[in-house]
This record gives sequence, structure tokens and C-alpha cells, in this order.
Amino acid sequence: MQTLIQSVLALQHDTLEAVDVLLENSQIHTVAPAGTLPVVPDQQVMDGQAKLLLPGFVNGHTHSSQVWQRGLIPQLPLELWLAYVFDSTPRQLDQFYWGAVSTAVDTLLSGGTCLMDHAYVIPGQEMETVEALVRGYKAVGIRAVVAPLIQDLPFASGFPKGCLLPQSASPRSAAELLTLMEGLIAEFHDPDNGIYIGLGPTGFHRCSDQLLRGCGELSDRNNLCYHTHLLETRAQQRLAQERYGISAVQHLQNLGRLTPRTSLAHGVWIDDADIELLASTGSILVHNPVSNLRLGSGLAPILKCHRAGVNVALGCDGAASNDAQNMLEVLKLGTILHTVTDEDYEHWLTPEQAVHMATVGGAKAVNLGDRTGTLAPGMDADLVLYKLDHPSMLPRTNPLQLLVLGRPTDIVEAAWVQGRQLINQGELLTVDTATLHSVLRRQLIATEGAQSQHHPVESHYRDVMLNR
Amino acid sequence: MQTLIQSVLALQHDTLEAVDVLLENSQIHTVAPAGTLPVVPDQQVMDGQAKLLLPGFVNGHTHSSQVWQRGLIPQLPLELWLAYVFDSTPRQLDQFYWGAVSTAVDTLLSGGTCLMDHAYVIPGQEMETVEALVRGYKAVGIRAVVAPLIQDLPFASGFPKGCLLPQSASPRSAAELLTLMEGLIAEFHDPDNGIYIGLGPTGFHRCSDQLLRGCGELSDRNNLCYHTHLLETRAQQRLAQERYGISAVQHLQNLGRLTPRTSLAHGVWIDDADIELLASTGSILVHNPVSNLRLGSGLAPILKCHRAGVNVALGCDGAASNDAQNMLEVLKLGTILHTVTDEDYEHWLTPEQAVHMATVGGAKAVNLGDRTGTLAPGMDADLVLYKLDHPSMLPRTNPLQLLVLGRPTDIVEAAWVQGRQLINQGELLTVDTATLHSVLRRQLIATEGAQSQHHPVESHYRDVMLNR
Repeated sequence: MQTLIQSVLALQHDTLEAVDVLLENSQIHTVAPAGTLPVVPDQQVMDGQAKLLLPGFVNGHTHSSQVWQRGLIPQLPLELWLAYVFDSTPRQLDQFYWGAVSTAVDTLLSGGTCLMDHAYVIPGQEMETVEALVRGYKAVGIRAVVAPLIQDLPFASGFPKGCLLPQSASPRSAAELLTLMEGLIAEFHDPDNGIYIGLGPTGFHRCSDQLLRGCGELSDRNNLCYHTHLLETRAQQRLAQERYGISAVQHLQNLGRLTPRTSLAHGVWIDDADIELLASTGSILVHNPVSNLRLGSGLAPILKCHRAGVNVALGCDGAASNDAQNMLEVLKLGTILHTVTDEDYEHWLTPEQAVHMATVGGAKAVNLGDRTGTLAPGMDADLVLYKLDHPSMLPRTNPLQLLVLGRPTDIVEAAWVQGRQLINQGELLTVDTATLHSVLRRQLIATEGAQSQHHPVESHYRDVMLNR
Repeated sequence: MQTLIQSVLALQHDTLEAVDVLLENSQIHTVAPAGTLPVVPDQQVMDGQAKLLLPGFVNGHTHSSQVWQRGLIPQLPLELWLAYVFDSTPRQLDQFYWGAVSTAVDTLLSGGTCLMDHAYVIPGQEMETVEALVRGYKAVGIRAVVAPLIQDLPFASGFPKGCLLPQSASPRSAAELLTLMEGLIAEFHDPDNGIYIGLGPTGFHRCSDQLLRGCGELSDRNNLCYHTHLLETRAQQRLAQERYGISAVQHLQNLGRLTPRTSLAHGVWIDDADIELLASTGSILVHNPVSNLRLGSGLAPILKCHRAGVNVALGCDGAASNDAQNMLEVLKLGTILHTVTDEDYEHWLTPEQAVHMATVGGAKAVNLGDRTGTLAPGMDADLVLYKLDHPSMLPRTNPLQLLVLGRPTDIVEAAWVQGRQLINQGELLTVDTATLHSVLRRQLIATEGAQSQHHPVESHYRDVMLNR
């Protein structure tokens, strides 16, 4: 099966050029100057005029089941917000299936072809939860890494100076969790069909060294992505100093966990020495600008990371902390936000660099840099074709600036994952979005309770973090 | 002519309640509990179920002709970016007409019913330019204030320590500009039809005291909005100190220009004393968060302003510095951005406060607080009805959080300005958007020249502002 996309604009060494692109089966076969590739019988031929072809973005960090909590939880710091997230998290398997479908669809329709689901799983139903998620991703056809959130320390351990809340559920031991992960890998890891299992210890703040190290061994042995939260908040920075006396990044390095297979979500509170460590070890930082502002986590030092050579990727984060799952919004904010951290405009990120972070950076973040994220022969055909003459992209000036700095909507004309076309003329070819919307529409969630009272953890938080 | 909107969600004292709303001619006649207003003959009746009704937002600061420069100019600090803006500014009257139409349509379709066009006007064709803009706004039906950008100091005066660039055009004298403004007011100021002329001296940095004061006299005498740029950049802050030895805000106060009719765009670099002055004088600050990040101008102290009781409004700014004219995007960023400036989440802006800034604040910013921005009997019927069951607003949790913190698209079901319905079932009833898009689509702008070379002002800027 061959598809020829003729005379389409594409980024070639950071410059837009018109090219012909030939896809064969699951891969990109040829990229050549526009007008040079012949049409042969039985080829699907697409006109690329007034269109832009980019490698699919990677949504480098999300929690798919939070789709059900979109718009639900007020703006609060992570530590308080999280209490409400736990209180209102979905408990039904079909909610996990539809959460995966919704997240995949939103990612695809905003230019993504792959996502990292740092997935909540129902305690005691971990296999069933992952099965529901994988079923959702296969139904849509997106490439997906499912890294179940696992932790062996109690919720209260995530606060500086401890927290005297009663435990709602006993965490499992590291050994039990690692056995669970081995079972999930054996059952669901399926690269040929674009489904991967990742190791997803929640974060140092709720994981023992034994669990962090054990996940690393599974990652090393099976060549799997290792994905964890890192220094999202100042509270976590303080906690690392309390617990280890060194930065959390240095601690991960001491555990041998900084590798090119390791992606770290947030890193808002990393310092210059941490940045050097991430750069020298080839670890990937996943930046979630919308979520970081929504939760008041702070400004991640992305310009410094960029100049130091850290691999940076972009993510939406879950819908409870970014009430949209739109990669183009994340690219825009990730590009313009950091101007406030550096007066020298020569250090500011360009739209080309944002695309690089979301494609090459994202592919590395999910340990798939050799397969996706680049428009080149031999790479998997994970591609997105954008309409440049759509009203939200007018007038036709600089296509990349319009894409990244504008507010494009409904501009995805076509998308492919591993050569399979998932979108054509803006319509999803796999799942029925009308069914998805009717499922989501049925849910009318009462928000009164969640928002009108103070959560029990709040006084501890204010006491420790705001000194009142 | 009466319209009855039945059982619609609306903000009543910061709480969402179901109400019936009766419009009569140009005004809101009654707001009553849902189900209490009777249907009478010859009424248009609309079902408000699963819908949200808000006062229309005011796009408190934009430059409509920059529609043609959307996506064109790279990310640079204002002082350098502006040189490119001047180099590529439209020169044809029909571009001004369509720029106004496009800005009005984008504002309307994102919840706005009024805008402040701080308008570029073609030198020597000021009357014709304003005529084209007014014609555009009347065609769409939006409420619009046109405040032509006027200045009597040369371009180079906007840089600290001066700038040795040759002058491209001689500015006119303050007296000439004031005469011009009197003519424009006499010809185009037309409140009954929702068209207003404002006084728009560019900013202290390019205006003499004589011009700033003269505009003020015209504002006072005719009860017109006075609108000017204020301390958008650190360079302007420095320039004010060089020129006056006091802050630009204190200087405006000394000129008698801080009044409740005065709206000030940006104010990124105001200090605590400036904030007190703005609060005590009832002046309005127009915050443009997207533009401020796009140009690296900095973070306006919006939380401090809010706590000090300053009237704050929201604006898109022109499409050359915010490559979308989407009010919902501005509300979102204006809400979440400022968390990074204050760790105490009790100071963070809520979606309700964002709506208040965009409605009540915006109405005050254009000197129309007694006519628009509030859902109450006797106010003009400037209203927007949103679809809550649209896919971008699912699942149905908290409608205001979804509206402000999500990324809603195509959710405007209906909109009225002065009681005239401009949008029905999501379709604009006045201008033909297909024609607008075909006009915009015709423009294919070569961007190579503008982006590949250094502008002559750059070395001065780097020398003065970055000390290199």
C-alpha cells in the first residue's frame, strides 16, 4: 500500500519547503523535492497544495481518566487539588475506556499521533483498567504508552513535614507492584500494534527507593520507557531536601534512573545543577505549561534547559489540570510563556523549536525516537496534514507562526499512525465521535460539594507552605 | 420587539442560576427566576436549556488592521517588533474595512459584543480610514470604539536614550492632530448606532504633553473614552524616568488624565504607587496577556491590581502580537497566568472574576459601564448565549470553569448587540463570512524579507536594553 502526498510544505532542516512524500505500508519511504516523485498505479494520491505536513506530536504526559474531571476542580496548588482529584476519580471500567478514547481523539485532532498515559488504575482491578485503556487506544488507532501510576508510600508522604490525615487506602508493597507490572508488560506490551507499557512510579515523593529502582530494572531489561513526576511544586522540592538532603534529580541519578529512556514530567523546580544532570544523562523533561499555570506550580526553566541541551518534550497533563487536551494550545503557551524568564529575545523559543520539542522531543520522551517524530525515510509514518487555507489560519503569512502562535481549530485534514490513515478530510475514520460525545454528554456532574468546603489537608498545607 | 430566553443559566451575584430573560427592543427588560415569565404573543422565544447566557465581553484593546499581519512578524520585544509592524502595515482602505470586519467577527464568535480599536490610520487619509473601519463595524453590527492612534513625536522618541534612525515620516503637530480628532468626532461619533470615537494618543513615549492634555480636553468635553498605551515594556519605564524623573502614571496624573473615562493598555511595568493611583482615580487597566507573552513584555501585576481595587479589563491586542483575536483564549490566560506571581491560591483569579473583568471591567474601559457589561434590567441587550453541550464543553461539570479554563470552540449559539441579534445557531446573520475568508485567503504574504535580516534599530536596542 502506497500513499503519495504531492507538493506539500514540510520542515526540512528548520525551513519550510515543498516536497513530495511517499508512504509505503507503515513507513515513510521517500521525501523528495516537490514534483519529482512519479505517480504509479494503485497509489493513493493526495494533493498537498496549501497544506502543511508535520510529524505527529507526542502528548508527552497525560492522565486519560481525568477527562471525567475536566472543569470540575477549582484552581488550587497541586497538593490540595490532588485531594479533590482522588475524591472524584472515576471507578468504572467503561469510564476508563471512554477517557482513553476522548484523550486520544483530542490529541489526534490537535496534531498528536502518540501519547503517554500516566494512567490511574483502579486498585485491585489494575489488569482490567489497563485492558480498558488499551482497548480505547486500539479503537482510535493512536500510538500510546500506558504507564500505570504506582506508589508504595501513603498519600500523606507527599507533603513536607508529613501530614496527619488518616490513610484512605493502604498502598501495596514495592514487590507486589513490580510483580503487577511484570504481568501488565507480559499481557499488554505490543509494539507492533503501537501499544506500549511504561514504568510509571508516581514520583519520588510517594515512592520508596526500592520501587524507583525496581521500575528501573524492568525498564532496562525490557527497553521500556520510565516515566515519573519530578519536582512539579515547591513543596516537592522542599520534601526532597527533607528526605534526602539533596535534590530529587541527584537522588534519581544516584539510583541510576537518569537515562535516555527516562522522561520526567514537569521539573518546574529543578536548579542549574539538575539541568546539567538531565543534559548529560540524556533524560527527557516533559513540559506541561497549561497545567503548571492552572495549578500555580510555577515556571519551568525551559529556556535554560534548551540552552543546556536537555531534551524537552511537551504534554497536556490530565484534563483535571488542563481542561483541554489540545497539543496546539500547549505548543503556543510553551513557546510564548518563557519570554518572561529571559529578556534576551535571542534565547526565546521559536515556533520551529516548539514543533521540534513536540515531535523529536516527544518521541524521545516515550523511548521511540528511532521510530516516530521525524519526517525521514525509514521512520514510521506518524504524520499530520494541516489545512493552511482554513479561516483560523488566514491570512496566509508564515504557516508555522500561524500554527503555533495562532489559535487554529479544525485544521487537521489527515493523520496517519504507522501508515494507517486515521483522519481524512477532518473526520476520524476509526471511532464514532458522535457516540463518544453522547457518552460524555450523559455525565452531568454535581460540583457543589467538591468546591464549597475546605479539604482536611488544607490547614496543614497553609501552615507548612504559606507560613500562616 | 420582545425576545424571551427561557430557563438559561446565568451569573447572578457570582453564582450560576437558571433564569428567564426578557429582551425588549434594545434593552434587557426583565431577569426573573426560571419558569416565571409568561410567553406572550409576537415574542421570539428561545430555549435556554443546556445553555449559558453572559453579558458580551469587551475586547478592550486591539488594532484591527493588524489582521493582515497575523503570523507575519517574529517574536521580538515591542520596540523591535514595532519597526516590522510599521514596515508592513496595510496601506489600502479596503484592507482596513476587512480588518475591521475580521476583528469584529473573531471577537463576536468568541463571546465579545464590543471592541476598542486603537486604530492605525493612513497618514493623510485619516477620515477615509476611519470611514472604512466604521463601515466594517456597522456591517457586522458589533459595538465599537474607534480611537485613532495619534502621536506628535517621532518613532525614535520611543526608545530610551534616543535612537539615531533617520525619520521615515514627519509627525504632525499636536494642534493639527486635535483638529483632526474634532473632525472625526463630528463625523463619526454615533452612540445610537453603537459607534464611538475615542481619543487614542499612542502613549506618553510618542506624545507631547500638549497632545496628551489636548486629547483629555476633548475627552472631557464630549464624554469620550481616553485610551492610551502605558508602560508596556521595561524600555518605556526607563524612558519615563529619563524624560520626567517620575513614573509615567504619575505624569499622566499630573496632566489630569487619570479619570474613570481613561483606559490604559498593558501597564506591565507599573509599581505599587502607580497601582494606588489607578485605583483611587478609577482609571481602567486593560490587560493583554497573550500579547504580553508573545512580545516578552513581562507579567502585568494583575493580582495586585485586583486586590487594590483597580478596574481591570481584558484585550486581545492586535493580531500582529496575538495571532488570534479570541476573547476566550484571553480570559483563560488572564486567569491562569498570574498564579506564578503569588503563592497564595486565595489570591488567584477565578473564572467568575475573569468574566467580571471581561464584561463589567471592559464596559468601564470603553466608558460604557452604564450601558453594557451587566445582565440587568435597563442595560442594553449586549448578550451572548453559549452551548453547554458542545463537544468542547464536555463532560458537563462546572460551566464557567469549562468556558474559561477549557478551550471552547464554536460554542456561541446566539449573540445580541443593543438587542439586535447578530448570531443565530452559531451563524453570523449580518456579514457573509465566506466572503471575508475568501478576501483573507487571497493574501499570500511573502515573509522572507521581514524575518531574515536584522532591523536597523536592533543594535541600538541591544546596546541600551541588554547592555551588550
